[in-house]
Amino acid sequence: MERLKAEIRRHAVVRNEKIVELDAVLTQKVDPGLMMEIGETFAERFRDAGVNKVVTVEASGIAPAFAAALKLGVPLVFARRRKTPITDPDVYIERVPSFTKGHVSDLIIAKRLLSHEDRILVVDDIISNGGALAGLLRIIGQAGASVAGIGIVVEKTFQSGADLLRGKGYRVESLVRIRSLAEGAIEFDE
Amino acid sequence: MERLKAEIRRHAVVRNEKIVELDAVLTQKVDPGLMMEIGETFAERFRDAGVNKVVTVEASGIAPAFAAALKLGVPLVFARRRKTPITDPDVYIERVPSFTKGHVSDLIIAKRLLSHEDRILVVDDIISNGGALAGLLRIIGQAGASVAGIGIVVEKTFQSGADLLRGKGYRVESLVRIRSLAEGAIEFDE
Repeated sequence: MERLKAEIRRHAVVRNEKIVELDAVLTQKVDPGLMMEIGETFAERFRDAGVNKVVTVEASGIAPAFAAALKLGVPLVFARRRKTPITDPDVYIERVPSFTKGHVSDLIIAKRLLSHEDRILVVDDIISNGGALAGLLRIIGQAGASVAGIGIVVEKTFQSGADLLRGKGYRVESLVRIRSLAEGAIEFDE
Repeated sequence: MERLKAEIRRHAVVRNEKIVELDAVLTQKVDPGLMMEIGETFAERFRDAGVNKVVTVEASGIAPAFAAALKLGVPLVFARRRKTPITDPDVYIERVPSFTKGHVSDLIIAKRLLSHEDRILVVDDIISNGGALAGLLRIIGQAGASVAGIGIVVEKTFQSGADLLRGKGYRVESLVRIRSLAEGAIEFDE
């Protein structure tokens, strides 16, 4: 993933010691060729894990998750975020915090789009404290589906989200690990 | 696009005479293979239009727009929706209504992601009255970029959005046209 690191070095804007804005790489503009490399890498790592569905959260999870689903030959489901409280019996709903956005929102997936027979690869663009992913995993648990693994494009290793998930037994694969954003500079692991 | 019509016939839920829910086809679950067919069709139709960027609106525009961008070999930019008012000088922002969602929201694109030299293919999943697309076109206009055309996956021809855009001189290509949702049934054009 040297190309991804190079794009991050070139376009990332370090907002503070904990937040890096990746609008021109992941969260508002994407290079489809780079996304397909990312998707292929996730597909290689989870090829033998029995995945029958990729699940992500709108909006910036969709491009890398779509690429992974395409390479694995399985459908993609994306949780919607809505702030309006609804009481629809046909959806799973979990309230989650967003570290980067600084507010809570709801994750919603229609019940008919998940099955207890599903074996799911969860994909997301960036993990900080993992609040949104934890909500997504609760939804998958409510559906009775199993999780083959979690693919993250950018892990901030100085925050605890990914390691918390590993501690719970999930297989978490991140493609790029950022260990520090101190003094406005991005430091990658290894 | 017979396969797309078949998927719509199979999975669509007609909510009323004006709203059809396509969660299992476009707005929450997608078949990446079908999306790639859609992307290839848009790419064929706009191959000679000088497109250097595809622009869409999160979230359900992303999958078909990503596929089109991949097939055209150009980057994808997606407008974000946020309801919180911001006064960031570095973004274009337009307030737009959503026919389906029944509320207004903001469309936001970072200024540095659009250029007056851009020639843009706009892609979206569904057009009703075209309120969100009109906002997106205003943003593109503010950036001084030109619009090569507009690719829509599902046009509801009994609403005026697409024809209003055609009347303004835009080239609008829709892949599937729904002419009626009366009595709970989907009727396609032709």
